[in-house]
Amino acid sequence: MHFSLAELANRVGGRVEGDGSIRIERVMPLEEAGPSDISFFSNRRYVAEFAATRAGAVIVGEGEQVAPGRTVLRSGNAYLAFARISTLFHPPRESVPEISPQAVILEGAVVDPSAEVQALAFVGRGATIGARTILFPGVVVGHGARVGDDCILHPNVVVGDRCVVGNRCILQPGAVLGGDGFGFAFDMEGDGSGPRHVKVPQSGIAEIEDDVELGVNSCVDRATLGRTVVRRGAKIDNLVQLAHNVEIGPLSLIAAQTGISGSTKVGMGVAMGGQVGIVGHLSIGDGARFGAKAGVHNDVPAGEVYSGYPAVPHRDWLRESAALRALPALVKRVRELEKTMKKLQEEK
Amino acid sequence: MHFSLAELANRVGGRVEGDGSIRIERVMPLEEAGPSDISFFSNRRYVAEFAATRAGAVIVGEGEQVAPGRTVLRSGNAYLAFARISTLFHPPRESVPEISPQAVILEGAVVDPSAEVQALAFVGRGATIGARTILFPGVVVGHGARVGDDCILHPNVVVGDRCVVGNRCILQPGAVLGGDGFGFAFDMEGDGSGPRHVKVPQSGIAEIEDDVELGVNSCVDRATLGRTVVRRGAKIDNLVQLAHNVEIGPLSLIAAQTGISGSTKVGMGVAMGGQVGIVGHLSIGDGARFGAKAGVHNDVPAGEVYSGYPAVPHRDWLRESAALRALPALVKRVRELEKTMKKLQEEK
Amino acid sequence: MHFSLAELANRVGGRVEGDGSIRIERVMPLEEAGPSDISFFSNRRYVAEFAATRAGAVIVGEGEQVAPGRTVLRSGNAYLAFARISTLFHPPRESVPEISPQAVILEGAVVDPSAEVQALAFVGRGATIGARTILFPGVVVGHGARVGDDCILHPNVVVGDRCVVGNRCILQPGAVLGGDGFGFAFDMEGDGSGPRHVKVPQSGIAEIEDDVELGVNSCVDRATLGRTVVRRGAKIDNLVQLAHNVEIGPLSLIAAQTGISGSTKVGMGVAMGGQVGIVGHLSIGDGARFGAKAGVHNDVPAGEVYSGYPAVPHRDWLRESAALRALPALVKRVRELEKTMKKLQEEK
Repeated sequence: MHFSLAELANRVGGRVEGDGSIRIERVMPLEEAGPSDISFFSNRRYVAEFAATRAGAVIVGEGEQVAPGRTVLRSGNAYLAFARISTLFHPPRESVPEISPQAVILEGAVVDPSAEVQALAFVGRGATIGARTILFPGVVVGHGARVGDDCILHPNVVVGDRCVVGNRCILQPGAVLGGDGFGFAFDMEGDGSGPRHVKVPQSGIAEIEDDVELGVNSCVDRATLGRTVVRRGAKIDNLVQLAHNVEIGPLSLIAAQTGISGSTKVGMGVAMGGQVGIVGHLSIGDGARFGAKAGVHNDVPAGEVYSGYPAVPHRDWLRESAALRALPALVKRVRELEKTMKKLQEEK
Repeated sequence: MHFSLAELANRVGGRVEGDGSIRIERVMPLEEAGPSDISFFSNRRYVAEFAATRAGAVIVGEGEQVAPGRTVLRSGNAYLAFARISTLFHPPRESVPEISPQAVILEGAVVDPSAEVQALAFVGRGATIGARTILFPGVVVGHGARVGDDCILHPNVVVGDRCVVGNRCILQPGAVLGGDGFGFAFDMEGDGSGPRHVKVPQSGIAEIEDDVELGVNSCVDRATLGRTVVRRGAKIDNLVQLAHNVEIGPLSLIAAQTGISGSTKVGMGVAMGGQVGIVGHLSIGDGARFGAKAGVHNDVPAGEVYSGYPAVPHRDWLRESAALRALPALVKRVRELEKTMKKLQEEK
Repeated sequence: MHFSLAELANRVGGRVEGDGSIRIERVMPLEEAGPSDISFFSNRRYVAEFAATRAGAVIVGEGEQVAPGRTVLRSGNAYLAFARISTLFHPPRESVPEISPQAVILEGAVVDPSAEVQALAFVGRGATIGARTILFPGVVVGHGARVGDDCILHPNVVVGDRCVVGNRCILQPGAVLGGDGFGFAFDMEGDGSGPRHVKVPQSGIAEIEDDVELGVNSCVDRATLGRTVVRRGAKIDNLVQLAHNVEIGPLSLIAAQTGISGSTKVGMGVAMGGQVGIVGHLSIGDGARFGAKAGVHNDVPAGEVYSGYPAVPHRDWLRESAALRALPALVKRVRELEKTMKKLQEEK
């Protein structure tokens, strides 16, 4: 597979600065690229690698300064241009229509003839698997679950009974859609056998809409009643926990190891850094953003940026963090003031 | 399946306010319920949904104000009443005694005739599976492991060699009981090959007692020596990490993404929010409680409530957090005082 | 299996204080050990257990005070001596050369004749499995992946297509090497269908070098371009997240639930406590250490110890945490000063 640089620029709506006729055969990192490779530069931490690269061409943004002689593909959205060019060289794997004889398909399951069910995958009673969807080994699709078209369920993914996966979804290895939510009612008597936690049936479902991606070993619990839902185009990273009855708005991005407690509603286009924690029953407005490790105890309005634990507006957090750095010195200054004050009063 | 409202009230020891003869067919969320459904209200965040619900009846607590004309099932422990009523409508799945021909049962394993071993489940040499226990696809029970009666091991659960699962336990998908603990001794010489970490054999086991639930993709490591143990009735949420030789007391509740380091002993009835971290070799007293994201570096006495990082008594944390909010202003006030003081001294 | 105490001491380069001829049959915890057992003491929290133990012998360090009559095996590196003695009693499981007829090996895969591939394991097209390596049930090795010699891949481990595992590696249950990194470019137009996130192909690989261990349900993502790599002898604990293009230096130790964001480079011999978070594109110097729950936003020089959120040098964090404890009182003292000052000024 190869393209001329001009053709690549044309496909992504960018423009070439330099020789557009060079032949591009691979997409490579700056450090490893050679004359037939295209690479990508945007983060200023890698300015030395950009200066030193042997890449035939480099994708850069509009504002980027470029050394003379360096051939670039310039784009108003360089990262998007990179994504598209890389997709040309690495197209998504297409399904090979086949049900492996070593797969297990229970009665009443409906698997589209264009789907690919690999060995050691399991499809439960009455489940449906859509067109061109791929089930890798170790995948378990529960009874009555519905998986849409053009999905990829990587190895050891679990889709629980009656749960729903939209079209064009990707579930990374070990992701679990539809485990039980964590709900227990405390029973002091326990029918005479002493105190115990009574399991609250988690009889709802979990659903992900079209174009959702779930990360490795991530967890989306089924609802107590009703449904837990991740709306279209949202992307969930590895080891994320979404509790029962959570709702994640369309196009939201949730980074690794974040946890969202029961019944919290997250709006559209929200972005969360890694290891964020949000308590239950909150409402997070559209477009809100959260710094890594934020611990959120209150509703957050649309468009706000929050950080810290407990989370506060990001600017406040920066101010408070800086003040905290200065706190040990402040303690000394107050002690000094107290001494001086005492002297002043004694002198009176 | 249906019940009269009066019958439901009778079964859970509650009382009807309104028409007890109405027929209840489902348990539904407030927003989705109709005239033949029962719903549940306790959290004041949903007071609008309670006012607007079309539910035939709503389960409420003793103190709850109810609009005229609204039919309710009132109970001293409304959440418990809800759990029990929901269980009537959604009874736990019963095992279908059968060993799938596509399951793998090694020699010397003893599977109770009433157990259900589904396709693609694996039972190791000398393992025992109790009465009415269900093994879903992808479950791996190691050599010599013992799983009790009436357990549910959801897809892709792993029970390591020689580990022990009590009766009536539920292991959510991907939960791993008995992975190796994280123990390495540093060897500077490495037998002449340079420094290396020598693995400390994790030769102990991991055990969960009766009525324990382990969440999705949770980890309970086996002990270095002896055993890691989760005692009867404790409930562990998704993505929780319990390290080697940890002990969790009976009836404790540990929310998602919490991690407890090696050899820490947690008492009875302890409750932890999400993303709590506890360092190793600590002792946590009975009934202690921890706010989400608490970072615990010291023993905690029985009955205490801790929050923050480093964790302190919850009240102190609230005070400190409030003071931190005011800290940037405090810095200015101290600067002001210093200026005034300087002036005062110069004027003398 | 049994050894005389003198023989054990000889094998680990320690010395006996007491009767070296006693016969040792097991390694046991202090509380459970009997006269034919050896145990281990180093943490002063367990001084009572040490005093009370019935163990025939106890491994202790050079400086340790020992009660008269207590037989010990003394060593300059007691924990290493313990690791070695425990390994004598619990040698690692050896492979039983066999490919189970219930395993699935696709065409072109090369499995060494001395390897053990258990039932329900899957090896993809063109993958290679080295000598004496063990694949447990539920393991999925992707197309073209390479697994070295003497590895143990525990149940439900996933090694993605083209990924690389060195020699003597251990992957605990559910560990995933080579899931997709989390990379999306925002496309405002979405080809006329409205805004969407375009997946950036994760076309690189993930590699772990020799002697690496990955914990239960841990995630090492494949690179966007190039490779994510964990270097020789590094040990990664449960539920850890290593994002695309991360590099972990040799012999580093990363405790449970830690997350490292994309492209961050971690040096040699770095140690991280649990639940640490490190943002992307950073450089962490050799031998740096991090307290549990540290949140790292900046490069860290070699040899430094960091804690806190945001992370600062550990000493500063201790000072700041102590000052924070005193902050509510400080606020009062400043208020007091202000009042006194006001009075002073009024009196003038």
